[in-house]
Amino acid sequence: MLPNSLKNLIDCFQTLPGIGSKTAERLAFSMLDFDKDSLTAFSDAILAIRDKICYCESCGNISDDVLCNICADKSRDFSVIFVVERPKDILLFEKLGIFKGVYHVLNGLISPLDGIGPDDISLDQLMSRVNTGSVKEVILALKPSIEGETTMQYIKKLLESKNISVSKIATGIPIGTDMEYIDSLTLELAIDERKNLN
Amino acid sequence: MLPNSLKNLIDCFQTLPGIGSKTAERLAFSMLDFDKDSLTAFSDAILAIRDKICYCESCGNISDDVLCNICADKSRDFSVIFVVERPKDILLFEKLGIFKGVYHVLNGLISPLDGIGPDDISLDQLMSRVNTGSVKEVILALKPSIEGETTMQYIKKLLESKNISVSKIATGIPIGTDMEYIDSLTLELAIDERKNLN
Repeated sequence: MLPNSLKNLIDCFQTLPGIGSKTAERLAFSMLDFDKDSLTAFSDAILAIRDKICYCESCGNISDDVLCNICADKSRDFSVIFVVERPKDILLFEKLGIFKGVYHVLNGLISPLDGIGPDDISLDQLMSRVNTGSVKEVILALKPSIEGETTMQYIKKLLESKNISVSKIATGIPIGTDMEYIDSLTLELAIDERKNLN
Repeated sequence: MLPNSLKNLIDCFQTLPGIGSKTAERLAFSMLDFDKDSLTAFSDAILAIRDKICYCESCGNISDDVLCNICADKSRDFSVIFVVERPKDILLFEKLGIFKGVYHVLNGLISPLDGIGPDDISLDQLMSRVNTGSVKEVILALKPSIEGETTMQYIKKLLESKNISVSKIATGIPIGTDMEYIDSLTLELAIDERKNLN
């Protein structure tokens, strides 16, 4: 009962995460009110993702050049590397605006159960960067899951022989959360990693 | 800090209704994992909306042909016209699968406050269809607002001299709603339009 072109667009929207059939319909219908230029721009933006996005040669971040905006920025501190799982994580930390170092994207976490070993994530590239000798500090910012912890332990071991500071970001109770909704593992970690106040 | 191509796509997603900056980011980032064919298909689907969507010559529904799928379907009952405000409303009623007549899209409602008069919505076309003499029943399915009621009253007057049945869909309390959340106007209408049970 819908024109095929609209049906196709609804199907496309449904391939996006978190977009169900009702939302896909709503979004596709809303595009009927767009002017031709906006539709062209939207279509072109998708093609640009297809044709231009590549990965930064140095850190693995998404980029539309050989080096990403961050690695190309000479004002950053290249002696501190912040290790993240995915390019999207960089956005989270960059929004804080407090970190002036550079990043390294692993593009995955070690997960033996899923058959993902150390060779499947971007560890060689991290070690090459460390081996240049200019890196003084590595901050691990992987999610506190079994895979995240395994990966952080593995990287810690890799870096043991090098003379650099390795840390991981803190786990604990998030600000503003009602304690009763916190899972027991987080509570346990929060106790283990308690901070001495005197 | 993001590649320009990704920034553009995020901006495009933000032009969609109900999509804020966080969701736009999530959607744009998710498209980085799409394969090239899916991205091409999505882009093509948008261009098809730009180039192919037109309005049905008979009822005003969206279509990619001179007649929409419903008006082109010879098995429908062309003597019953269901009058709706927008093409999207047709989808709602078609999903019920109980109506076998045809539709008429007004593409707006009479709203003197917004400067929208009877000539600004698709009433002439409705009257031309009625004047062919083959229409026996008109069902008004406009939303129960001041504009909707005004438009329904206006259409009722237009059709008075013709020998056809005119009805409007019922207003009242929706199934499954807690009575305390119903506005007073709906409650009043529900009492006015009460149904005799004996």
